[in-house]
Amino acid sequence: MAAAPEIERLIQLLAKLPGLGPRSARRVALHLLKKREGLMRPLAQALEDVADGTVACEVCGNLDVQTPCGICRDGARDPATICVVADVADLWALERSAAFRGRYHVLGGLLSALDGVMPEDLNIKSLTRRLDDGIAEVILALNATVEGQATAHYLGDVLAGLPNVAGLKVTRLAHGVPVGG
Amino acid sequence: MAAAPEIERLIQLLAKLPGLGPRSARRVALHLLKKREGLMRPLAQALEDVADGTVACEVCGNLDVQTPCGICRDGARDPATICVVADVADLWALERSAAFRGRYHVLGGLLSALDGVMPEDLNIKSLTRRLDDGIAEVILALNATVEGQATAHYLGDVLAGLPNVAGLKVTRLAHGVPVGG
Repeated sequence: MAAAPEIERLIQLLAKLPGLGPRSARRVALHLLKKREGLMRPLAQALEDVADGTVACEVCGNLDVQTPCGICRDGARDPATICVVADVADLWALERSAAFRGRYHVLGGLLSALDGVMPEDLNIKSLTRRLDDGIAEVILALNATVEGQATAHYLGDVLAGLPNVAGLKVTRLAHGVPVGG
Repeated sequence: MAAAPEIERLIQLLAKLPGLGPRSARRVALHLLKKREGLMRPLAQALEDVADGTVACEVCGNLDVQTPCGICRDGARDPATICVVADVADLWALERSAAFRGRYHVLGGLLSALDGVMPEDLNIKSLTRRLDDGIAEVILALNATVEGQATAHYLGDVLAGLPNVAGLKVTRLAHGVPVGG
């Protein structure tokens, strides 16, 4: 026996978090036990709150406490531009940069023959449905990986083949080193 | 705005855990949101259970769901040998090695002039009180750091000066490379 079963169970769950292993999970558990009121209980409460309250936005797939999410509701953002991202993490990263003031669409992954991710596994239908509503530009902000570029290529084809979006501009993020850089 | 306030609060709390920073906390939060039923709720529950149920053992200072703790209650362990450790983490490490079958005493830290940790800040009185009960050996399993060795030295003096423990053996962990090693 290393610790009480309840503590061992907590360590096992902590070890499942990305970036933590069995050793660091043990360290985290001890740290939490030392800061029981200041950190452990607030963390338990915050996990509960977020697990209860967070929903995927029915429009864009973003995670928020309401649906449609805060970004889709925000009237100050350009409704004619949609930035397509693979994951909510990418949306958050773009939001932190504060460079983009349009709306988003979260695919929920990237096409991958190796991992068996097919077009129907991604939120592509909900994207094409959104294009009826006067969207002027779709920006494909996908990774510069094989999967990211394959997905961008596939989406470019799908969007070009839609009958009702004749003037739609489809752009991709620039990659590589700028000329003179 | 990067995410809903509830999610940002969770990220802030996660970032306070040892080994996690703001970026990895964000990654952990997303991972939890994807595994809401399988990981997030069980983790919230485990945190709650451990925060509610864990107490410091009134005998040795170990963390357990009962006091005296499982080790102090275990009749199969040698009651005449006490291994003195700085922290519960050290107790757990020794238990995982399964080499020691006596009981423990957790000091709750190490003497440190720099950090202002004085003898009265450590569980030393409760250790000397335990020595009335027929203890034959005290093993000082403290770090090979300045603080660890200063604490071991101080404890050695304290134990040698006790009137009621004439035959008590005080040993330290061996350090360094074995001869011929």
